[in-house]
Amino acid sequence: MGHTRINLSYMRSAEQYISEHIDTFQSEIFEFLRIPSISASPEYLHEMGEAATWLKGMMENSGLEAKIYKTPGNPIVLGESSKAGENAPTVLVYGHYDVQPPEPLDLWTSPPFEPEIRDGRLYARGSSDDKGQLYLHLKAAEAFLKGVGNLPINLIVLAEGEEEVGSPNLLPFVKKHSDQLACDIAVISDTGMMAPGLPSILCSLRGLAYFDIEVSGPSSDLHSGVYGGPVVNPALALAQILASLQDSKGKITIGNFYDDILDWSSQAKKQMKELPFNQQELERFIGAELCGGEKEFSVLERLWTRPTCEINGLNSGYTGTGAKTVLPSTAQAKISFRLVPDQTPQRIENLFRKHIEKVTPKGVQVTIKQLHGGMPWRAQLSDELKHAVNSALEKVFNKRAVIAGEGGSIPIVRDLETVLDSPVLLLGFSYPGCNLHAPDEWFPVESIENGIRTIAHLYHEISLMAKIC
Amino acid sequence: MGHTRINLSYMRSAEQYISEHIDTFQSEIFEFLRIPSISASPEYLHEMGEAATWLKGMMENSGLEAKIYKTPGNPIVLGESSKAGENAPTVLVYGHYDVQPPEPLDLWTSPPFEPEIRDGRLYARGSSDDKGQLYLHLKAAEAFLKGVGNLPINLIVLAEGEEEVGSPNLLPFVKKHSDQLACDIAVISDTGMMAPGLPSILCSLRGLAYFDIEVSGPSSDLHSGVYGGPVVNPALALAQILASLQDSKGKITIGNFYDDILDWSSQAKKQMKELPFNQQELERFIGAELCGGEKEFSVLERLWTRPTCEINGLNSGYTGTGAKTVLPSTAQAKISFRLVPDQTPQRIENLFRKHIEKVTPKGVQVTIKQLHGGMPWRAQLSDELKHAVNSALEKVFNKRAVIAGEGGSIPIVRDLETVLDSPVLLLGFSYPGCNLHAPDEWFPVESIENGIRTIAHLYHEISLMAKIC
Repeated sequence: MGHTRINLSYMRSAEQYISEHIDTFQSEIFEFLRIPSISASPEYLHEMGEAATWLKGMMENSGLEAKIYKTPGNPIVLGESSKAGENAPTVLVYGHYDVQPPEPLDLWTSPPFEPEIRDGRLYARGSSDDKGQLYLHLKAAEAFLKGVGNLPINLIVLAEGEEEVGSPNLLPFVKKHSDQLACDIAVISDTGMMAPGLPSILCSLRGLAYFDIEVSGPSSDLHSGVYGGPVVNPALALAQILASLQDSKGKITIGNFYDDILDWSSQAKKQMKELPFNQQELERFIGAELCGGEKEFSVLERLWTRPTCEINGLNSGYTGTGAKTVLPSTAQAKISFRLVPDQTPQRIENLFRKHIEKVTPKGVQVTIKQLHGGMPWRAQLSDELKHAVNSALEKVFNKRAVIAGEGGSIPIVRDLETVLDSPVLLLGFSYPGCNLHAPDEWFPVESIENGIRTIAHLYHEISLMAKIC
Repeated sequence: MGHTRINLSYMRSAEQYISEHIDTFQSEIFEFLRIPSISASPEYLHEMGEAATWLKGMMENSGLEAKIYKTPGNPIVLGESSKAGENAPTVLVYGHYDVQPPEPLDLWTSPPFEPEIRDGRLYARGSSDDKGQLYLHLKAAEAFLKGVGNLPINLIVLAEGEEEVGSPNLLPFVKKHSDQLACDIAVISDTGMMAPGLPSILCSLRGLAYFDIEVSGPSSDLHSGVYGGPVVNPALALAQILASLQDSKGKITIGNFYDDILDWSSQAKKQMKELPFNQQELERFIGAELCGGEKEFSVLERLWTRPTCEINGLNSGYTGTGAKTVLPSTAQAKISFRLVPDQTPQRIENLFRKHIEKVTPKGVQVTIKQLHGGMPWRAQLSDELKHAVNSALEKVFNKRAVIAGEGGSIPIVRDLETVLDSPVLLLGFSYPGCNLHAPDEWFPVESIENGIRTIAHLYHEISLMAKIC
């Protein structure tokens, strides 16, 4: 009983610290979001360095020891607090300080790197994905380290700057420093809640296989009148190739594409059917009918448990104002597949290449480049850990968490699980419709406080859990 | 006999003037080509005005009376010489001082608006199409007006600045000034010769129907992982729509598309087979196998007498460096059809719209905009006129001219023929492979002198022809 009283007062101090500093937190997030840390474009190398340095400083402000590690790409920032002792559990937090390119810029209501609050939403590129959410962990730690005086767990915060370009340098780093990064649980806040006020634990992620393809024909652009007819048009050939990837029923037509997909348990399927999901609301938000993909699966299944083939970009010939009668020399597309367990990017690449070879018309050549890939994932949490997470969420939201899936990819999740040999918990605080990777990305202002408080409770619950063990 | 002697000495003086001034002519063409008179882009309005003013000045230098006429778009420049008297025939020369956009700029060996001579070729945007060739007519007139003292025909030079964007203001102008523009023959030098040294008269042009199409789905770009699956991808839908336009045999699959095509006489087909055409050479030049289009027609037939469907541009989603996992909100294509007699842009637009409506998948909307259209054309020259043209060509090239077709479009040709009720002669001096509408457009340096001399002889032959009548 005495033990519980101490813990309560301990958490009360941490919570008090959080509510007293919430304005400071908000202005600090603004600072972080103002740095255009776009990893996809080589023009922003300085800004990547700036973001890493800002993050190191903020870790130190929060009471962590911090260090920047060089990599062949963007640096990795590592923050640590190991004063809880060898018997206390170690939590590793993974996040990323790089963001998606903000284009098309003209569709942003306010500029992507000038954060602005409107109607309870913090609008900025990276607000949800992932700078805003990574930041929450620093402040949960700070609430203990500065508000109480000590953190009940050992904490490692691992932040990379290349998540949006496939994390090419993270895994080598983690492997090299696996002793230093050893942990009992890895926590990632880079996802969202099923609905505002409804806390959610993610049980699955889709994988990714992303390709650049280029169709090339004539050695230079030609006049479409003078040469049109006997020349195979690369843009038309590209359209034919792309159209061949899916049939009218939404099935991907690449041979053996569906071979490796694992089924879900009937219990999991039942839980998914019971989730509060409103298709009309999603259609209103998206502004389009949800009639794509495999018709025999529910919308949530198509979003979470089924693979996809998307065209992410098209480019060929003249795309400016007015008419230019050009027969283009080349045509490019960006194509990506979302994968589900146990599909792998390697196998899908092989099948994709075979298909393209089969369907490419005479008179043009195709080159394919895999830009990045990531494995799909399903959560493997113990009952004890589930209990700790549920307790933390219930204390802040007064509601039992639901188990949800996620259509996006965080390729590093499965890799971290394997290399560190520890379970990974995905616990995010953005809301549906937060415009991830799109113009007007936002993060709920209320999730700043809710997120920091939940994470603080989680750290506490994990510390208790370990003591019980 | 005396009559012939006078004519010979008369032509000799004109020819002498041409050969004495060839260096001046070349530097004047350079001046003209340095003005970036790009009509497709609204950024170049000043340059369009500059080009029109330059042209007016050059007409006056050549001895013509010249005037600039405002239109709702770019101005029309009119040059005239009517001192040959009412009994002399009137030749109307039509040309255009606007050029195609030069993009992609990185594929030009020398900048598009900095003319440069390499290996007997004058490289610059507009050198062949059409500033370089329009200029030749001014100098042929000058050779008479300044070198001899009088021009044996009445001449009208009509130059517009909107040919590359569909000539929206030319026809209203011609209709309004039809009395002033009345002529016995219209001559256009905006085409090429079948081969270097082989003079050619064009007997056919293809028409054009050019469209912008946009497929729109979700109201904004979406994260391809979070939303991929039930959302119909507009880029994929566009690919499906474009792929549906042609079958594997190169046939356009739009219903009733081929209905209005007139056949050619067996004599015309025989002449076409006898033309000096080397498929391997064209394939080497283009850098691709000529295996597109309708297989049952010869390459020249596919180039000249059969319609086409080309994709001129594609644009959707992310087209920058690296990977962006976006599900694009819209996808655009520029599509154009080359038409042959008696297809019309209006009928083809209707058939195209019907087809698109039929093939558009559920979940996306398509909007179609016709950017411009032009009628296909076949020459209607009298035997007398053919004789005059052949005589002029033979005097310069020492070779009989061949009758050729042309895959490109000069939409105004058929309209001029109709409104002015006069035959149109297409007589051009560029060579195959001159990169019309493409990077590294060029005009043969030798065609400057050959062209001016041929045109001078043509004016003379036409004046004789009328006297005989």
